[in-house]
Amino acid sequence: MADTVVTKWIGDLSFDSLVSGHHVTLDSDSQYGGHDAGPRPKALLLTALTGCSGMDIVSILNKMKVEDYSLMMEATGIQTEEHPKHYHTITVSFKFAGKNLPEDKIVKAVKLTNEKYCGVSEMLRQSAKIIIKVFINDSEVAI
Amino acid sequence: MADTVVTKWIGDLSFDSLVSGHHVTLDSDSQYGGHDAGPRPKALLLTALTGCSGMDIVSILNKMKVEDYSLMMEATGIQTEEHPKHYHTITVSFKFAGKNLPEDKIVKAVKLTNEKYCGVSEMLRQSAKIIIKVFINDSEVAI
Repeated sequence: MADTVVTKWIGDLSFDSLVSGHHVTLDSDSQYGGHDAGPRPKALLLTALTGCSGMDIVSILNKMKVEDYSLMMEATGIQTEEHPKHYHTITVSFKFAGKNLPEDKIVKAVKLTNEKYCGVSEMLRQSAKIIIKVFINDSEVAI
Repeated sequence: MADTVVTKWIGDLSFDSLVSGHHVTLDSDSQYGGHDAGPRPKALLLTALTGCSGMDIVSILNKMKVEDYSLMMEATGIQTEEHPKHYHTITVSFKFAGKNLPEDKIVKAVKLTNEKYCGVSEMLRQSAKIIIKVFINDSEVAI
């Protein structure tokens, strides 16, 4: 299976990308001559990582009959000092909230996602160390 | 330097990601239970790659005093058959248009970007073969 995106230069450092039928604007900040009309490209890797992991996790938990919870993910990428500046470490915190949530199933779903199913995670971990953290109702749980 | 994104599960397979102060919706297609409210996470890697390369290229060409041209990029990622499904090959076509464009400077800018400056390219090429093509006014040029 193949995916194709088409990205056009709009002007200065702004680009419009047509991806999966949706337009996403990319831009740089004023420090580099941009106008902040959209996200930075590199940070979008973190968005892709959380989206990929999140979709897998809710699908797996759905099969496990885990319901009535919320999920928020926070991903931080730390860049190298030298060019090409890229993330050498990415920390993803998976924050679940809800009543009587089964810790074992949640940990299993997060692990399955990051180790087996999420293709974005598979790609990014070739160049960055990916650290996973899981929180249930603001308490970190062992994974 | 560090970047952080916050991504919230909206429902079904939809997620809202706050990245560089901008909201990006991610979703899956109906085949997997999604509603196509936004791009697929994996395809967003291709958007990030073209945005990162594009910003570098226009910056470099600006320093080289190359002006009055348009730039469009098409990136195609081919996925593996096995889980975790990821891109094993990515082809990026850089399509320039304009009058009297200096082929040597354009090729140099594209090469510098992909080999030296673009951090997204640096990350993705650890797991995918990245093939670069350059077109000037619809004619492919040797790189």
